[in-house]
Amino acid sequence: MRKRIITISRQFGSGGRSIGKDVAQALGIAYYDRELIEKVAEKTGLSHNFIEEHGEYSPSKYPFAYSFVGRTTSGMSMSDYLYNEQRRVIVEIADKEPCVIVGRCADYILRDRADSLHAFIHAPLEVREKRIVTLYGETDDAPRKRILDKDKKRAINYQYFTDRQWGAVENYHITLDSHALGMDACVKLLVELAK
Amino acid sequence: MRKRIITISRQFGSGGRSIGKDVAQALGIAYYDRELIEKVAEKTGLSHNFIEEHGEYSPSKYPFAYSFVGRTTSGMSMSDYLYNEQRRVIVEIADKEPCVIVGRCADYILRDRADSLHAFIHAPLEVREKRIVTLYGETDDAPRKRILDKDKKRAINYQYFTDRQWGAVENYHITLDSHALGMDACVKLLVELAK
Repeated sequence: MRKRIITISRQFGSGGRSIGKDVAQALGIAYYDRELIEKVAEKTGLSHNFIEEHGEYSPSKYPFAYSFVGRTTSGMSMSDYLYNEQRRVIVEIADKEPCVIVGRCADYILRDRADSLHAFIHAPLEVREKRIVTLYGETDDAPRKRILDKDKKRAINYQYFTDRQWGAVENYHITLDSHALGMDACVKLLVELAK
Repeated sequence: MRKRIITISRQFGSGGRSIGKDVAQALGIAYYDRELIEKVAEKTGLSHNFIEEHGEYSPSKYPFAYSFVGRTTSGMSMSDYLYNEQRRVIVEIADKEPCVIVGRCADYILRDRADSLHAFIHAPLEVREKRIVTLYGETDDAPRKRILDKDKKRAINYQYFTDRQWGAVENYHITLDSHALGMDACVKLLVELAK
């Protein structure tokens, strides 16, 4: 079956976003990453910053931090509210048009769609350390710490909302080491699989 | 770089062996699975049964069982001895000819070879349950139990000798869901990557 929807989950600094963008371009389909934030902001009135910070990352490196997130007037936690709205946007997008969706538990949300392909991109830590400095510049934190913090927050967020383990092979149809295989080869493979 | 060596690790019942065989055939290169047992038996004088049972599986479902494995006259445990001899055979084979090697920690043993491609094949549990009954017939144990036992013993064996987690994405250049993608697509992808 042709895969209309491709979800890309990725380790921080692995080049997953860039691969996702190239796959979308090669297939001539829509690409959703930051573009999702825009849509969720329209729906919820929440700020872009809040959505960017909480739409894919746990509030801290500790899972229990979810207990302290503020509540909406209905009593639902802000995190749950944001997840639900984001989930709704992802389902709508997938219904509407073929596309690539990066991150945000999209693999889980669309797991029952036979027309979707779920990929996870990873790369060795030392390669990612170099990559994020080239791409995003230096900060006060060491590159390794930035990567581990970010991946941990993604992992907790994923586990909290899906009850699955982020990056576990079972969740994905294909996982790729973007360093060992090369970014272009990853793009080519995904494009072929989608066809 | 062309990949001369392809290692295939696989969940029990996922079709990894069959994929490995087809990849070897498509590339016109050697295939080592049971063929490895033959070579190790020649070297060590150990029985085929012993090598088959212990060359890839822990002695029981409990990691500490390794402490109770018999010793060689040099004081080395039989498991360590078998692993070392098997490792030596794998390194020799990889030096000698392009090939596909199934299981037996080959991904770890050959991890530093730039001309190797390391793949892991998995499939949903329910699919594997059906597959092993079709392929190997019924036994007194339920298919699910047979799969979980076998995978657990592979995982413990792998962790014991490599200090890595069996089936963790980081260990493999590519992982594939043979059910979602189809066995033929998996073969095709691996053949292309190897070229």
